[in-house]
Amino acid sequence: LPKIQKPEKVRPALPSGFRDFGPAEVRRRRAAFQTLAQIFERYGYEPLETPAVELLSVLMGKYGEEGDKLLFRILNSGDFLANVPEEAKASTATLLPFITEKALRYDLTVPMARWVAQHAGELVFPFKRYQIQPVWRADRPQRGRFREFYQCDVDIVGAEGLIPLMEMIEIARAGLGALGVRGAVFHLNHRALLEHAARDTGWPLSQFSAFCTRLDKAEKVGWQPVKALFQEEGYLLPEWLNPEEGFSSTLQAELSKLPELAPDLPTLNELIRTEDPVLTVRWDSTLARGLEYYTGYVYEIRVPGSGVGSIAAGGAYASLVSDFGGPDLPAMGLSFGIERILTFTEAQSPPDTSALQVLVAWIDASPRFVQKVVKTLHEGGIPAFAYPAPKKLSKQIEYAQRRGIRWVAIVGAQEEATQSVQLRDLPNHVQTTVPLDALATACR
Amino acid sequence: LPKIQKPEKVRPALPSGFRDFGPAEVRRRRAAFQTLAQIFERYGYEPLETPAVELLSVLMGKYGEEGDKLLFRILNSGDFLANVPEEAKASTATLLPFITEKALRYDLTVPMARWVAQHAGELVFPFKRYQIQPVWRADRPQRGRFREFYQCDVDIVGAEGLIPLMEMIEIARAGLGALGVRGAVFHLNHRALLEHAARDTGWPLSQFSAFCTRLDKAEKVGWQPVKALFQEEGYLLPEWLNPEEGFSSTLQAELSKLPELAPDLPTLNELIRTEDPVLTVRWDSTLARGLEYYTGYVYEIRVPGSGVGSIAAGGAYASLVSDFGGPDLPAMGLSFGIERILTFTEAQSPPDTSALQVLVAWIDASPRFVQKVVKTLHEGGIPAFAYPAPKKLSKQIEYAQRRGIRWVAIVGAQEEATQSVQLRDLPNHVQTTVPLDALATACR
Repeated sequence: LPKIQKPEKVRPALPSGFRDFGPAEVRRRRAAFQTLAQIFERYGYEPLETPAVELLSVLMGKYGEEGDKLLFRILNSGDFLANVPEEAKASTATLLPFITEKALRYDLTVPMARWVAQHAGELVFPFKRYQIQPVWRADRPQRGRFREFYQCDVDIVGAEGLIPLMEMIEIARAGLGALGVRGAVFHLNHRALLEHAARDTGWPLSQFSAFCTRLDKAEKVGWQPVKALFQEEGYLLPEWLNPEEGFSSTLQAELSKLPELAPDLPTLNELIRTEDPVLTVRWDSTLARGLEYYTGYVYEIRVPGSGVGSIAAGGAYASLVSDFGGPDLPAMGLSFGIERILTFTEAQSPPDTSALQVLVAWIDASPRFVQKVVKTLHEGGIPAFAYPAPKKLSKQIEYAQRRGIRWVAIVGAQEEATQSVQLRDLPNHVQTTVPLDALATACR
Repeated sequence: LPKIQKPEKVRPALPSGFRDFGPAEVRRRRAAFQTLAQIFERYGYEPLETPAVELLSVLMGKYGEEGDKLLFRILNSGDFLANVPEEAKASTATLLPFITEKALRYDLTVPMARWVAQHAGELVFPFKRYQIQPVWRADRPQRGRFREFYQCDVDIVGAEGLIPLMEMIEIARAGLGALGVRGAVFHLNHRALLEHAARDTGWPLSQFSAFCTRLDKAEKVGWQPVKALFQEEGYLLPEWLNPEEGFSSTLQAELSKLPELAPDLPTLNELIRTEDPVLTVRWDSTLARGLEYYTGYVYEIRVPGSGVGSIAAGGAYASLVSDFGGPDLPAMGLSFGIERILTFTEAQSPPDTSALQVLVAWIDASPRFVQKVVKTLHEGGIPAFAYPAPKKLSKQIEYAQRRGIRWVAIVGAQEEATQSVQLRDLPNHVQTTVPLDALATACR
């Protein structure tokens, strides 16, 4: 017979920034996703899944110029160069539109907005959805930064304000608590306050986002250096903005001047005064979270001393649905940085089922009897499987040991004749004859 | 303040061949995946997840020439055209190596083989893994054929033969049964028999795969036309090959001549004679399942009258691990065509939790009290959430109705003062005053 033509040996490797997850990691990650999903469902959020691949027309321009560059573009299939005019081949920029029209999903918000626009007629607003899927970004890979990572998002489309905010806080508290996080801080601010501060400072309103970016630095460098930086350029930041003062009475006096915030003050006061071992709410007047995207409350969760930055974030935003021709609806969302959270929590992974399993080791029994033993165990609710071949018994037992399996049910012609097994309890070095109909009970 | 520059409206659409999954579909699919995962774990298979993106060097040449063409290639990031020599821009074929080095995962077998090669030192062989993830193929989209679809694979690496075969049959039976499939047929054959038939027919062995492809047509067109086709070219197929004869004694006489199959005959006989409402095993001497890939048993599961082709398939194969520099190990696997199965089964989706929920509708209560009502329900194990704003009560109730929510807990200043709610049972048109501490019980 013809010999199969073997391909050359290939070095097994992954592209940089991408990861495999072995059994223990898959179990741990899966449990974390499920924990969050259950909490989302408890609050009436419904699951949505969108494809990995979206049209470039849907994605482009949604993530800023930098974001557009970080899209993983998919090459058109077939002879994509056939109809490209010669002059288009001059540069990457001119060639691009001819050879690619799709890209990998960059986040979960834009695909959700697209979906809501497509299904607006059938949906009941406010529409509450959650989505737990990977996203892809062509970032330079770094320690802890990957090119494929999961996002866990909840969003409510067609609502904004205090009640959704309180819901987000409760979801964050329940989710982080269940994942084993303690001592997290929910940093809270509102766009209206930032605008008020810009006006007070006399900052040119045409450059509001530069104001926010600069203010946002207070988290890293502190309030005084930021204040000094503004002062150097002749801008005097109001003292009530000092984030170190927290939710001071001077700050509250300012907030009470803002029609967007004044009615919420008593509730905010209570929220902020509530101490909690998992998640405490703090007002953070300098939190900006990047630019024009947000329209109301903004928030970011950090864990002091965790060694990672924000572990969840979100805010009120214009939902993007109208960009896709759908209704113009406000929205509010919270995204869990689940990959970061998993790096520093001891979130329990569900027990490896191996520990509970039985290996059926066999020598001269019939395959039918071997299978019968496995089936008997399954029917008794015990995970079990047979060693694939009647190799030396010591080899089969070593396999069970290396996989961490406690019980080995040994069968040969003798056991088949008497419908029993030799049941060995590996860690306890005990071996007894057990009739088949008592086997499942004996392995509990 | 500067107006946010709105991007132009974009038509919300998906690339052809890609799909969204709304809440009901996600729930149904997720339940199906979980069902299979539980069965795989019961047999000692462990979960593996690999990234969506692999190096082209890993994928190329593994799926045949046709497969290479169906890879979704990812364009290199940055100014990928900068260092491309002018002559390479002449054609797609010459340009390709310069502008792409990664592609989307095409199946789950090659990534698994790569992973096993990378981790061979730590693994315990036979290594049993399962994997449930999407794959991508740039196929021409058709009814029921998608460019992104899930595969559910179990593979055992470092084993072959009868015991793994019996395990695959049991896994298929348990999996299909749990997904609601009835009357499926497990078509079974062995490469050794096909080789024996080719020798018997006098077919040139250098063209063994053409022999298989031709034989494989018997499933569609029947045995007689295939026989005639061979005859036209002067080849006489042996009568014992007739798949319509099943596991006949003439066939068994042939099988007993083959050292690979003779020892398995008694067990095969039993397997084939076992009638089962979910999955019956049938010998199918003309089943070839494409070429050189397989080394021993091959199988394919079909459901007569389901309107879809094979719903699961697999066989014994050379594991590919050695192609990546790992040990040379035989393997056996089964892949569920889960997307196809879901098209014709009535697999129960888990109940939409909405039906069990409570909407907290509110008018002039404080947000804190609204939140307290939600919390009280959650602590009693009842999913619940508040309408996001104190809109007209009729509007809030309509929302509950449209979402299929049974209970509405109505709160205003009066209820807050007495720590109670007006609980309306929507389908039964009953409304009663319920104190907060009796609320969870009242909603059961």
